[in-house]
Amino acid sequence: MKEREEKILLAHGAGGELSRKILHRLVLRYFHSPSLALLSDSGLLSLQEGMLAYTTDSYVINPIFFPGGDIGKLSICGTINDLAVSGAIPKALTFACIVEEGMDIGDLEKIFASAAKEAELAKAEIVAGDFKVVEKGAADSLFITTSGIGLLHPLASLGYRKISSGDLIILTGTLGDHSAAITLSRGNFSIRTEIKSDCASLSLLLLPCFDLCGSSIHSMRDLTRGGLATTLCELSDSSERTFLIEEEDIPIKKSVATICDLFGYDPLYLANEGKAVIICDSNDASSLLSFLQSQPLGKDARIIGRVLSDKESRVVMRTKSGGKRLIEMLQGDQLPRIC
Amino acid sequence: MKEREEKILLAHGAGGELSRKILHRLVLRYFHSPSLALLSDSGLLSLQEGMLAYTTDSYVINPIFFPGGDIGKLSICGTINDLAVSGAIPKALTFACIVEEGMDIGDLEKIFASAAKEAELAKAEIVAGDFKVVEKGAADSLFITTSGIGLLHPLASLGYRKISSGDLIILTGTLGDHSAAITLSRGNFSIRTEIKSDCASLSLLLLPCFDLCGSSIHSMRDLTRGGLATTLCELSDSSERTFLIEEEDIPIKKSVATICDLFGYDPLYLANEGKAVIICDSNDASSLLSFLQSQPLGKDARIIGRVLSDKESRVVMRTKSGGKRLIEMLQGDQLPRIC
Repeated sequence: MKEREEKILLAHGAGGELSRKILHRLVLRYFHSPSLALLSDSGLLSLQEGMLAYTTDSYVINPIFFPGGDIGKLSICGTINDLAVSGAIPKALTFACIVEEGMDIGDLEKIFASAAKEAELAKAEIVAGDFKVVEKGAADSLFITTSGIGLLHPLASLGYRKISSGDLIILTGTLGDHSAAITLSRGNFSIRTEIKSDCASLSLLLLPCFDLCGSSIHSMRDLTRGGLATTLCELSDSSERTFLIEEEDIPIKKSVATICDLFGYDPLYLANEGKAVIICDSNDASSLLSFLQSQPLGKDARIIGRVLSDKESRVVMRTKSGGKRLIEMLQGDQLPRIC
Repeated sequence: MKEREEKILLAHGAGGELSRKILHRLVLRYFHSPSLALLSDSGLLSLQEGMLAYTTDSYVINPIFFPGGDIGKLSICGTINDLAVSGAIPKALTFACIVEEGMDIGDLEKIFASAAKEAELAKAEIVAGDFKVVEKGAADSLFITTSGIGLLHPLASLGYRKISSGDLIILTGTLGDHSAAITLSRGNFSIRTEIKSDCASLSLLLLPCFDLCGSSIHSMRDLTRGGLATTLCELSDSSERTFLIEEEDIPIKKSVATICDLFGYDPLYLANEGKAVIICDSNDASSLLSFLQSQPLGKDARIIGRVLSDKESRVVMRTKSGGKRLIEMLQGDQLPRIC
């Protein structure tokens, strides 16, 4: 019996006796929420009045374990980051798994443990979840969908319309670490590197920025699919402003730059899982930068550009050689299933 | 170009230009939320103070279109029902898709339209979403994960501990319609029936029950995976009470009973998507039943049993022939990917 139970069976998702067992083994063991412990249809939480941010993301990353994280950690970080860049303090999360029949239960345990640890770090409670099993071949091992709600920080006042001429553009760290780590973990390469995914929850880095600079922060975005380039294009488009960024100020690790050269990637378009861009009033930019650089997750933060006065919704990069390059949104796909 | 766009490409999920196009074509066209229209990282909503119910479910049903609904409608109904049986008034939903490369965009449009229509019926706003694409073969056409938040009805006071000796057990309608419809839609049978899934949002049926009977309602559960039998076993287990149900009072459509005979299904264990069980004080049961029967979604409601005074956590069914059968939780799986 024990042996049989080490692989996921279709019946683990059927809602009967085996479902109950797997929920006890995974959910109740790793996620310590009084609300989850009831195994009822919804989690209950008490919230004070205010503006709520509410978000969701599905995670289909391949492989599910990678240097610097796994799909469990990633699925929590991603949702925490979506809340944080919206100026919201994460409060509660949900965690829904779609599992392929035959998946190793030990692997699932590692993933649940790592999701639980990350949620605890970010001080968010996992209050509800789901566990579905599909037959072998109908899904690629494991997909996770998280959602999250957070309370808007009282001093946050973000909005595309607030982005103004003279604002500075801050990048919180190096580009491309996540995509480079995933690329290397997929292939059977003889490249030895220390590259790890930057997968991290940014709430503890980003929310104090509002205490520090409040409404001087005009926009915040995390840099996932589409990378820095696509995010800046979207912001420039929404705010109807031209952004000028400086290539030489954009931090990229040497090892990551080498991977980009080898695989023909443009780091501006690579997905990151622990980096954000902040657009803020120039008066507050230097104190904000100092704060970011004082934090482990922001130590490589740099001012990478500024918002110009013309209203043409373009993103222009001054290259290292002094030329100017027009930056466009991602076309096609550099790296499928990166998150 | 137009022709190429009729099938989902990996790049539709990459976060770039094509992602933007598909979001406009699907999300912004069908989901009319001011918050979604911003395409920002989180939806924002203003909520009054109170207890919040928060839930999530993944939907992996096969096939994605079936008599009486599709995966889009189902994914909204399921989450609405989880909130409603928790005594919560649905307020906001999220909608995350994992799509297989090559999926027909026209099919996706139908599914988005049907999800939008159902959310509108249930008066819940879809405020956030996600759209991921995986390569052909890595998922079986489409999986949807929804989450939902609702405000607890001021008169709802549900809890296993409130279930007491003498309480009556009400079933809101016939059993097995959903499972029978899915079974028939899977095979190439020459059976002609009018059987449709009972897939429906129950909030408009169940929430007025709290206005009517308030704290006399001790428990409510919808009857999805595991069916009536598993749900009653869980409730009996949690409340440490014995339940006695009467087989002859359990409503089952004749056509569904025939399918059960043909395929060897026990209707007590079949998943339903528009049925609930309500355990309430016997004093209020008849007025509650009259109300339910006056509603289209509750017209077949019946009192099917009662809570006994002994505390053995058993579910016993008096059969039509007068015998007694001990009802246990679902073992194994009758029908994978039923929701």
